[in-house]
Amino acid sequence: MPISLDTPRMESKFSFSDIPAHRQKSEMLAGAIAPITTPEMFKNPRCFQKPAAKSFEHRLNLEARSRGAATLKAAGAELNGDVISLGTGRPSPEYFPFLKMSMEFPSGPEFLENSKHRSSKEIGKYDIQDKKSAFDLAVSLNYGYSAGSEQLIRFLTEHVDVVHNPPYSDWQCSLTAGTTSAIDCVFRTFCERGDFIITEEYTYSATLEAARPLGVRTVGVPMDDHGLSASKLEGLLSGWDSPERGARKPFLLYLIPTGQNPTGVTQSLDRRREIYAVAERHDLYIIEDDPYYFLRLGYSKHTSATNGNEQTCPATEAVDSFLRELVPSFLSLDVSGRVLRLDSTSKILAPGLRCSWMTGSAEIISRFLFLHDATVVCPSGLSQLAVHTLLDEVWGHEGLIKWLIHLQSEYTERLNVMLQSCEKHLPRDICSWQTPKAGMFHWIKIDWRAHPMATSALKPEFERMLDIEDRVYCKGLRMGVMCCKGSTFRAGGAQDCDMFFRVTFASASLPQITEAIARFGKAICEEFNKAN
Amino acid sequence: MPISLDTPRMESKFSFSDIPAHRQKSEMLAGAIAPITTPEMFKNPRCFQKPAAKSFEHRLNLEARSRGAATLKAAGAELNGDVISLGTGRPSPEYFPFLKMSMEFPSGPEFLENSKHRSSKEIGKYDIQDKKSAFDLAVSLNYGYSAGSEQLIRFLTEHVDVVHNPPYSDWQCSLTAGTTSAIDCVFRTFCERGDFIITEEYTYSATLEAARPLGVRTVGVPMDDHGLSASKLEGLLSGWDSPERGARKPFLLYLIPTGQNPTGVTQSLDRRREIYAVAERHDLYIIEDDPYYFLRLGYSKHTSATNGNEQTCPATEAVDSFLRELVPSFLSLDVSGRVLRLDSTSKILAPGLRCSWMTGSAEIISRFLFLHDATVVCPSGLSQLAVHTLLDEVWGHEGLIKWLIHLQSEYTERLNVMLQSCEKHLPRDICSWQTPKAGMFHWIKIDWRAHPMATSALKPEFERMLDIEDRVYCKGLRMGVMCCKGSTFRAGGAQDCDMFFRVTFASASLPQITEAIARFGKAICEEFNKAN
Repeated sequence: MPISLDTPRMESKFSFSDIPAHRQKSEMLAGAIAPITTPEMFKNPRCFQKPAAKSFEHRLNLEARSRGAATLKAAGAELNGDVISLGTGRPSPEYFPFLKMSMEFPSGPEFLENSKHRSSKEIGKYDIQDKKSAFDLAVSLNYGYSAGSEQLIRFLTEHVDVVHNPPYSDWQCSLTAGTTSAIDCVFRTFCERGDFIITEEYTYSATLEAARPLGVRTVGVPMDDHGLSASKLEGLLSGWDSPERGARKPFLLYLIPTGQNPTGVTQSLDRRREIYAVAERHDLYIIEDDPYYFLRLGYSKHTSATNGNEQTCPATEAVDSFLRELVPSFLSLDVSGRVLRLDSTSKILAPGLRCSWMTGSAEIISRFLFLHDATVVCPSGLSQLAVHTLLDEVWGHEGLIKWLIHLQSEYTERLNVMLQSCEKHLPRDICSWQTPKAGMFHWIKIDWRAHPMATSALKPEFERMLDIEDRVYCKGLRMGVMCCKGSTFRAGGAQDCDMFFRVTFASASLPQITEAIARFGKAICEEFNKAN
Repeated sequence: MPISLDTPRMESKFSFSDIPAHRQKSEMLAGAIAPITTPEMFKNPRCFQKPAAKSFEHRLNLEARSRGAATLKAAGAELNGDVISLGTGRPSPEYFPFLKMSMEFPSGPEFLENSKHRSSKEIGKYDIQDKKSAFDLAVSLNYGYSAGSEQLIRFLTEHVDVVHNPPYSDWQCSLTAGTTSAIDCVFRTFCERGDFIITEEYTYSATLEAARPLGVRTVGVPMDDHGLSASKLEGLLSGWDSPERGARKPFLLYLIPTGQNPTGVTQSLDRRREIYAVAERHDLYIIEDDPYYFLRLGYSKHTSATNGNEQTCPATEAVDSFLRELVPSFLSLDVSGRVLRLDSTSKILAPGLRCSWMTGSAEIISRFLFLHDATVVCPSGLSQLAVHTLLDEVWGHEGLIKWLIHLQSEYTERLNVMLQSCEKHLPRDICSWQTPKAGMFHWIKIDWRAHPMATSALKPEFERMLDIEDRVYCKGLRMGVMCCKGSTFRAGGAQDCDMFFRVTFASASLPQITEAIARFGKAICEEFNKAN
């Protein structure tokens, strides 16, 4: 297809309303067991006018370079309709002891759990064959294709096209068996033992702990209110001294750009552009781990309702404005194909699904599929079926966005309760915080130097901080509240010596949040010998 | 607890009928989100009179030795009922958009797909809280414990206790995200780059392909009609020359003991004992990959029906005799705790579940759980819920065995059709086979030296065989049948130069099986210039 670079970028934008017509024009789903799916046909055709991604093959590690397609699966791909396969040992679906499944889902715009206003859907074993549905138990319960079922890939490709509109042509989506698994796959694809990867100075502890046993070290870059500092990133890379560090210059940049875990910071668009420019200059590969992308805070319908002036936007307008107000992702800025974006269903649908998705260049995605073949194969077929039924057949694209609008309002209310409780119960002279704009986490800084033991010990400063952090943590537990120590999240080489606690407003009920923060305030005051 | 080694082993045997009383006596399930489950309480209490497993810590690789528990999860374990957690970012179940699920399952003894005789079960979101059920959507859809849900671990622990009765005390079951994932976890726990592992001379190609990119090499041990040769295994180990091989002496033995893939061979009990004795002598660690354990062949109810004298055994008697006739597993012979047994739901329930289980010593299982925390976390909650509902709540332990009896009769019929077609269509002077006693595979040897091109080429013998194998394979495809080349399954160092094809009777319909073998016969005859 001809590449016309002077086509204005916005012209290639797809909207949810374009999708039904596009589905009608494009090829039918194969409806077969584990078909090798080329997601190209699900994309906005104007996408092919964009330039192709650059190659990042030089960034693959030995393990990834040694990996190819699974022989038996590759042989299966040679089959055409007339060939009878006596090849792979796939059981016949008649031996799957699951005959029918039905599910009930909440309906918008209220999405109330106890409302009678709910949608249900019944799924039979042979609905595809019987032309009743695009997906069924016979296919979802058999072995699956390593990128996931064509049915779900279609939905997610359309979703990514509309929401992120990646600026290169050959991007692809693949399912993952959850983002934790995807991050492990990242290490197994790019990193050698001894390598450094770059992260925010404080980052998700499970990522740090997944890297360590693989011999992958982290180097944290300081953050400010707009997220990871692009100039400090530039400084780290320009000044990298391989002999001194005992490692090659790092090229993998792991970021949590929205509602960062643990700090709650959301990178501004300008900051994202600056970081991407550094990545272009130093040929970095970016892992955009973005589970909180849609959980923006500060948009409460409840707040307006209290003010007596709640407004119900026309639904489509609400969807459009929600999408417009999202900070553009790194994927949407990625002219070179150097971003692997990890989306998660855990925070917007349910963690137990273990069925999330990633988006990147076809070259890199293909390496992950080889790895899937030898490890997780693909997410559970029942999870895929449940997610597809809900998103594609019941809610549709706009319905998902309306659900996200609902979540954003719920989490905003939770945050507000937590902030009010913090204002009331935490000693403001030693506790400080920023209001998070997205996510599930509130990050509280405590001035540990005000603690009676801050100067008394003979230990180095950092160890004194850790001692006091542990005292506050244990005192909290005794008072009946568990908060996470900030030190759990420190990447390698973190410079500061401040003390933080991460608290989440995602799990506990509203009264519990209030009570828990009150207990935490009491614990801090007792530790710091302050009146409460 | 006192260890009384002279207690006759049979006394400690548990039977399905003991389970209801034991469940009543033992502690209640926690009914919480991701509780850390100690499966001890689900076991036959007499189990604790057995000796403990030996330690195999000296067999762990650097990665496994560097791994510990995930910090946030470990912190969660410190919680008691009065502490409010603001710790891990687990969404509240009110935000899971799944309100209700119901499923329909076939009922025994016929288990017919189209029968009205079926069982159904409805699962609500808060059934545990509402005291309606042991498992629900709120718990299964949240983050899970790395060994799987307590509900399913209970069922599987009981199942393993009755079926395998491991002869040491501290064995444990954990779920896996499918056996492919479990095998990857095995390599990541025991093997260093450059190591050799021991396998059967022909083995599952996906295992070979999973090992290769990790730099793990395989050395195949020849087989006879009773499986891997114990004396050749002894010879390989006694004669291992590390400098010559450029690798330490191998200690990991990967076996598919029942209905072996690809050869269809089932190891006799005597052979298993001989192999285990070699393992004891050389301190091997055994991976018992046994997905076909329950798919025994040669027990067709249809055959008897044709003879007009079908007998319906009383159900419990049928269950007892089925269990009695299973060849004992390596797990059931494992006095030292040197076996990790991998069971699969893929061949007995459905591959799309990606939810299987493994059994081994507590020490080794704990290492796998650390790895799960950093990778797959645990299988899909919906898969766990579906499997638990079917096995525990609908069928029960005996119901599962009745389903397996049904499957064994179905697969026997499929095998019989294939064997009849082979007798009829394959040229017996160059094609030979054994009748498989278990599994899904039929292994056909073809005397390639009878091929017109067998002697003509200037190539080495092995390459000539491969050329002819490829000609037969391609001719088959052109004739409309796909069979798997035997060479795909050759482990490293395989000595023989024979030609095989693996065909499965699991997937195609009965008429297709007949037609496919007829086509394959025609392809062979054309290639070998024989009348068909």
